[in-house]
Amino acid sequence: MGVAASFALMLAAPALVVAADAPPAGLPSWNDGLAKSAIIDFVTRVTTEGGPDYVTEVDRIAVFDNDGTLWTEQPMYFQGMFINDRIKAMAPDHPEWKDKEPFASLLKGDMAGVAAAGEKGLVELAMATHAGMTTDEFTKIVKDWFATAKHPRFDRPYNEITYLPMREVLDYLRENGFKTYIVSGGGIEFMRPMTEQMYGIPPEQVVGSTITTKYELQGDTPVLMREPKVDFIDDGPGKPVGINKFIGRRPIFVAGNSDGDYEMLRWVTSGAGPSFGMIVHHTDGEREWAYDRQSHVGKLDKAMNEAEQRKWLLIDMKADWNRIYAFEK
Amino acid sequence: MGVAASFALMLAAPALVVAADAPPAGLPSWNDGLAKSAIIDFVTRVTTEGGPDYVTEVDRIAVFDNDGTLWTEQPMYFQGMFINDRIKAMAPDHPEWKDKEPFASLLKGDMAGVAAAGEKGLVELAMATHAGMTTDEFTKIVKDWFATAKHPRFDRPYNEITYLPMREVLDYLRENGFKTYIVSGGGIEFMRPMTEQMYGIPPEQVVGSTITTKYELQGDTPVLMREPKVDFIDDGPGKPVGINKFIGRRPIFVAGNSDGDYEMLRWVTSGAGPSFGMIVHHTDGEREWAYDRQSHVGKLDKAMNEAEQRKWLLIDMKADWNRIYAFEK
Repeated sequence: MGVAASFALMLAAPALVVAADAPPAGLPSWNDGLAKSAIIDFVTRVTTEGGPDYVTEVDRIAVFDNDGTLWTEQPMYFQGMFINDRIKAMAPDHPEWKDKEPFASLLKGDMAGVAAAGEKGLVELAMATHAGMTTDEFTKIVKDWFATAKHPRFDRPYNEITYLPMREVLDYLRENGFKTYIVSGGGIEFMRPMTEQMYGIPPEQVVGSTITTKYELQGDTPVLMREPKVDFIDDGPGKPVGINKFIGRRPIFVAGNSDGDYEMLRWVTSGAGPSFGMIVHHTDGEREWAYDRQSHVGKLDKAMNEAEQRKWLLIDMKADWNRIYAFEK
Repeated sequence: MGVAASFALMLAAPALVVAADAPPAGLPSWNDGLAKSAIIDFVTRVTTEGGPDYVTEVDRIAVFDNDGTLWTEQPMYFQGMFINDRIKAMAPDHPEWKDKEPFASLLKGDMAGVAAAGEKGLVELAMATHAGMTTDEFTKIVKDWFATAKHPRFDRPYNEITYLPMREVLDYLRENGFKTYIVSGGGIEFMRPMTEQMYGIPPEQVVGSTITTKYELQGDTPVLMREPKVDFIDDGPGKPVGINKFIGRRPIFVAGNSDGDYEMLRWVTSGAGPSFGMIVHHTDGEREWAYDRQSHVGKLDKAMNEAEQRKWLLIDMKADWNRIYAFEK
């Protein structure tokens, strides 16, 4: 995740969707080569008791960006698709949106008009769809969307548009005693309903952007109301801040795909002990998308420039992955 | 934890102190009776597969207040003692404090003068001791304090002034598949260095109050600087908010001791399934302290009034606990 942090303000809720098939053991979707070997070598080193790089199990923390690292972020962040769908679904109850930007442009399908409203406009769209309900209500909205919405290119539910090789890395790390976390610019309550089923990552191991919530009584029943106010943006320099706040110790493994992950990559790979940083480079325009320095979504420039110097592993999606999605036959 | 939320603004860092002896298995420090039975009955019900109240392991989340619930909060919050000690230790580098309140009063030992500075003054003391350094530096300061400071009444390190019966409950829950969390008004980075060793609770399972941190480069090294700005107060209605933000699902077990835990008690025990709420009532003026409705620290009034109606278990420390501290012989 990189630009459009405004689309990253939204929070989270739980899921009711079809379970994606579990990835096979090991790293079978990775072609043999330097990338695969580097991952295995690192895990072997930190789990070899008595070895110079041994790390006790409790300190084996791994953090993963989500958009563009664990699942696709094209043609736009999936949370942006969610906002788009929700505005359309809510429009009958909001006749005033017909004459109000950026709602009017969105409802006409005029994305240039939406973009013209700038960051302020995007925040308005985000808040209209993410605030004003209880946390339980938002959870249900998110689950329902995942159960019905489909990705425009692949015609499949968004929770299936995940990278099988990365799910294999998650499993491989957990088998080796790692605790795996998501650290994403996306809304924490947009991710949490889905991450257990998609990645085997429970809600409490998801770090993301938050809006504020407020404790209230509805009659005699306590609820948490979602307010239209940004609490925390977990992107760029916010990512190490989020890691420190939510996890409270420095991870030893980090995966990202964009300059929005740069500071997190720096922070994780600056610890005193062994550490491992990897960047998913989107190089496959046929099976997925190819983009980096010039992209508005997931721009990868500075982090790529420094990858060699910082010893971060640059994954070549096209060359290193023999499968991208589990639904490929 | 209840009043003086200002003393609750401070954050967290890791520990290097003497390990307190592990509590024995079961609940041996609890006298046989209604309280002990109620805890065991609940845990048995939610762990009995096929039973009507069975809860899957992943949803067995338990949250505990810290001050007054897991360790003593008298004669003042231990984090207040830390502030007091730190101001004295830092004074030689701050000659201006001699003429500046509330620093001047504190340095003279005039606690009434400190109190006269009100909440604003307490925040100043907290920020002077908790901000202006990196997270790693603060962690070291906290560890060093725990390794040297002693409780004025018991003449022992603060990490030994924990309630043995509550540590037994933590262990008992974990043995039964629960994930145990602290949800405290105290500073997250003041607790995290110590909770693993004191309670078997890792840093990532500690929710607390936070100040903001900022990613910076010192030379080429990334650090997180602690800023003198409140980020989040995890007290009163902030506790359910903190639970939702950090954990992302509703716990089924909650323990507190004051009105600062009231909303957390309400939130946890309002879930759809089985749940359990308990309140530690400080009734033992000889072995510990006796206080409730009139206390400035850990005031317990409203939560006690509603305990029966809400089916919250009121623990009578004097009657229910045959030992309070592990160091009692």
